[in-house]
Amino acid sequence: MSARRVVLAVGAHPDDVEIGCAGALLRWSGSWRIVLVLATNGERTHGGAHRATEARKAADALGAQLELLGRPDGRLGRTVDLIEQLEQIGARLRPQRVLAPAPNDSHQDHCQLASAALVAFRMVPELLFYESLSTTRFWPTYFVDVASTIDRKCELLELHQSQNGRLAASSEYVRTAARYWSMKARRGAGSIEAFEPYRLTS
Amino acid sequence: MSARRVVLAVGAHPDDVEIGCAGALLRWSGSWRIVLVLATNGERTHGGAHRATEARKAADALGAQLELLGRPDGRLGRTVDLIEQLEQIGARLRPQRVLAPAPNDSHQDHCQLASAALVAFRMVPELLFYESLSTTRFWPTYFVDVASTIDRKCELLELHQSQNGRLAASSEYVRTAARYWSMKARRGAGSIEAFEPYRLTS
Amino acid sequence: MSARRVVLAVGAHPDDVEIGCAGALLRWSGSWRIVLVLATNGERTHGGAHRATEARKAADALGAQLELLGRPDGRLGRTVDLIEQLEQIGARLRPQRVLAPAPNDSHQDHCQLASAALVAFRMVPELLFYESLSTTRFWPTYFVDVASTIDRKCELLELHQSQNGRLAASSEYVRTAARYWSMKARRGAGSIEAFEPYRLTS
Amino acid sequence: MSARRVVLAVGAHPDDVEIGCAGALLRWSGSWRIVLVLATNGERTHGGAHRATEARKAADALGAQLELLGRPDGRLGRTVDLIEQLEQIGARLRPQRVLAPAPNDSHQDHCQLASAALVAFRMVPELLFYESLSTTRFWPTYFVDVASTIDRKCELLELHQSQNGRLAASSEYVRTAARYWSMKARRGAGSIEAFEPYRLTS
Amino acid sequence: MSARRVVLAVGAHPDDVEIGCAGALLRWSGSWRIVLVLATNGERTHGGAHRATEARKAADALGAQLELLGRPDGRLGRTVDLIEQLEQIGARLRPQRVLAPAPNDSHQDHCQLASAALVAFRMVPELLFYESLSTTRFWPTYFVDVASTIDRKCELLELHQSQNGRLAASSEYVRTAARYWSMKARRGAGSIEAFEPYRLTS
Amino acid sequence: MSARRVVLAVGAHPDDVEIGCAGALLRWSGSWRIVLVLATNGERTHGGAHRATEARKAADALGAQLELLGRPDGRLGRTVDLIEQLEQIGARLRPQRVLAPAPNDSHQDHCQLASAALVAFRMVPELLFYESLSTTRFWPTYFVDVASTIDRKCELLELHQSQNGRLAASSEYVRTAARYWSMKARRGAGSIEAFEPYRLTS
Repeated sequence: MSARRVVLAVGAHPDDVEIGCAGALLRWSGSWRIVLVLATNGERTHGGAHRATEARKAADALGAQLELLGRPDGRLGRTVDLIEQLEQIGARLRPQRVLAPAPNDSHQDHCQLASAALVAFRMVPELLFYESLSTTRFWPTYFVDVASTIDRKCELLELHQSQNGRLAASSEYVRTAARYWSMKARRGAGSIEAFEPYRLTS
Repeated sequence: MSARRVVLAVGAHPDDVEIGCAGALLRWSGSWRIVLVLATNGERTHGGAHRATEARKAADALGAQLELLGRPDGRLGRTVDLIEQLEQIGARLRPQRVLAPAPNDSHQDHCQLASAALVAFRMVPELLFYESLSTTRFWPTYFVDVASTIDRKCELLELHQSQNGRLAASSEYVRTAARYWSMKARRGAGSIEAFEPYRLTS
Repeated sequence: MSARRVVLAVGAHPDDVEIGCAGALLRWSGSWRIVLVLATNGERTHGGAHRATEARKAADALGAQLELLGRPDGRLGRTVDLIEQLEQIGARLRPQRVLAPAPNDSHQDHCQLASAALVAFRMVPELLFYESLSTTRFWPTYFVDVASTIDRKCELLELHQSQNGRLAASSEYVRTAARYWSMKARRGAGSIEAFEPYRLTS
Repeated sequence: MSARRVVLAVGAHPDDVEIGCAGALLRWSGSWRIVLVLATNGERTHGGAHRATEARKAADALGAQLELLGRPDGRLGRTVDLIEQLEQIGARLRPQRVLAPAPNDSHQDHCQLASAALVAFRMVPELLFYESLSTTRFWPTYFVDVASTIDRKCELLELHQSQNGRLAASSEYVRTAARYWSMKARRGAGSIEAFEPYRLTS
Repeated sequence: MSARRVVLAVGAHPDDVEIGCAGALLRWSGSWRIVLVLATNGERTHGGAHRATEARKAADALGAQLELLGRPDGRLGRTVDLIEQLEQIGARLRPQRVLAPAPNDSHQDHCQLASAALVAFRMVPELLFYESLSTTRFWPTYFVDVASTIDRKCELLELHQSQNGRLAASSEYVRTAARYWSMKARRGAGSIEAFEPYRLTS
Repeated sequence: MSARRVVLAVGAHPDDVEIGCAGALLRWSGSWRIVLVLATNGERTHGGAHRATEARKAADALGAQLELLGRPDGRLGRTVDLIEQLEQIGARLRPQRVLAPAPNDSHQDHCQLASAALVAFRMVPELLFYESLSTTRFWPTYFVDVASTIDRKCELLELHQSQNGRLAASSEYVRTAARYWSMKARRGAGSIEAFEPYRLTS
């Protein structure tokens, strides 16, 4: 299993990765080893231990390994300490590809993590930024067709039961965004996850 | 009636204005005089005379005056001739506000008209760019709530019967975009038409 | 009075709000409740207590409520702590509109406060950035005519007596900028305060 | 005289060069040979022959050589024909530096000439863009102190008598812009002409 | 053979495609059908018939099909006519991927072709922009390792014998650019062709 | 000697200034007094004391004064403390020109120092950003011909013996970048150091 290429998906809160790029990860799960790294346990919107359990269930359903950094929810800083922790994970797992939140984001935790990830993973061959509801000025150029995985993506979101009712984590949001980008990418009324590449290699 | 402020909505084809900004125009129709200016009759996707008739029906339903420039569909150029024709319309109607397609657009007619409108209406107090399916790199900062008018907007689109079945002119597209921007503007799962302001005044 | 919509104007130092947007605030003062939030007392260029007194006089003359955060002048950081303090003010006052310094600014306090304000007030319906002398790469699209209030704006600046003689706080600067933007906005040789909208709603 | 380095200042109309960069040209006139190239005679706002005469007077007062291309005012296009005419002038005069209108401009003639100049003079060592009243999204990084020449610049503008009363060509405009950029460049309440460099060499 | 996916590489002059992306095309030549479309015969720097012959030799060596549009060298315009000709080629060949010159380019023919290609191929799933010596403001995010093909790429350039001695078409240029981007993409002192994606799909 | 104008070159690590701009500094060394300010001793890639010694040798060979701030390598933060230390150096030396790393850089220390330098030296007449291997989205407009100094620049790099073998500090890198920018600036196959100006004055 360790021979498979590694894709690392970094998120600020337990459901951020699922919201941003679970459709792509589900498509890649056969040929890539998937590792989720969550900076916080998201304890501001529910008990952190509870959310960590939900994160684990979702990671299991996704077939992904999970790493929890346990940093304070809502107070994430682009600190040297965070950067070094991410660098150590990179050194250990040697990912070929990293998915991180897009840097232009009005949410404190998202933009700080994005900025830290860009520095920590600057040597990784491929680095892609995914969208969240609070992302701003996002112009993606890499489009992954998730028509075959969008339903399972929504099921993963439901595993984060404590977040039911939050628009940013809803099927409503992820299906609307997927439809919007499918049309903008001129792929018809399908479902697409959109990414801003920092670096793609071939 | 002539004492009301004039908003001019410029489109390349008979249904472009409805797709891009009919929700806002419907909201403003009580307090503004609305004039639609269409650069072409859209004869490439159906007979031009037929589409002009559809355009007139939709303009009537919107309570708007209609001006047809009759330029060749699919071959619009940002020519001095087009700019001067738009300038003459501006001189005659003295609009307070102009709505035009956004300049970054991969459709020939849209981007050329956008560029011409920016020059022709540079002295108009307010100039806003609306989105179409083919708009690229669009980052709006002006958001009009169209929850109360989105259904009537979709009815206007249906008056362009010859375009039924085209995704770019569908309820599917306009409702998805309106939902997407409502969420991005942090207004919940509502309906919003989004605009890039070139200039707004107060 | 509490039924009036609230506009919150955030500044790094006691005279920043007056310099950046007092002309607009004066125009809006009849129909909006105005609250000024100052991050520091500006003690680096004069005694902080003295400057706080000047700030209060100016706020009174403007008809605005004043909140002083008392953070260290010249050492403002975009910390979680500052963001949370601003968030609490937002939760208490529920502003409809926030005015903040523009993010591209070569002054430490301005750019850090701008960045914090964007995060703290990301759910507020309207967020506008104003200019200061040290703002860089500023391209405004929202223009408020302040011909009727520019004189009173300059009087407000004079209430910050300790700052007399500083170009960045002078009538010379604010009148020049107001004239420059009036001409650039194609409104003749008048007076305009210019803003970069992050989000405007209608 | 031919041994002096040549600076070529390109303008769309007879007074455009004076408005945009006469202060810098006056400073350089001792050590550079100055050539003005005007694309049109500006016949839309006055008789073209009359304006050409004014242009010649101003060029004489500036100590500059004048070349008139006589293209149609208000109808300038970024045509191959214009580009080749500019290339021939470049081949003949071998300028070290070219000053041209900034490309983001809502005036038809300005933006088309800017675009043509960039192509025609792409091999010239130094190419700088100057501002006009209709320039948009201008962020200059090269600042020329014109405190010693701003008065003479305004006298040059007065030689274009037919344009008296036009704000875009007024002392009011050029003095306001010069003061604004002096303050933004942190040079106090002086007078500065601002340029966006396309390429500067040393 | 027709079952293979088609990559279309569009160039303004006979050697532009080889300069910009032959390394990538050589890598893809096994699994893709390659078609070169040249807008002009490049008759300005040598006889057009001669250059067409060179282009054919290079295309043969690359294993690519060649289409010559025979438009006037140095006078390419982003005309409706050119756009429609490209659209017809797209309709006939149904490419999965198009490579075109990057739009920011100070060479007349390059920037006009780039702009036309974006419109003509807006429905193609993948559109990538390649660099030339005259490209400006180029920030690539898609990097193709051409270590195994850079030597053959340089041999292809030598087949354009009439261009020997032109820096823009030299091994010196293409090897320097390939080394520069390899280092910037953090891939060591190798050879990489860099692309700006307009749209990539997966 | 103190009457000479001062150019301050700020670097994060002992060899950063040599890599980014030693060619220009060597050209200016006759007419300018050169001061190097290094934020860290670069102890992560070798003993800090050893690297400081190397830095001193290189500064001597360059004819420059050296100031070592001794901050922690790899952990540089854009703190108020760093900004104030740089401001004090500015107040003491009164530089006419500052060279700093470009702000868009994926290396923690580079981007943090760049951001601090912009604030600390905002009143300095001239501020230019230089490139490093990890700089991203760099579009320079100021080009210094270093044909006459590139060999000595490479000798300076060799004085940082502990860094031999690191690509980012190699002759391979600096010669490739110098050749690339010479060609992009249309100066032939020479050697040019490229800079993004924040502000240049004349």
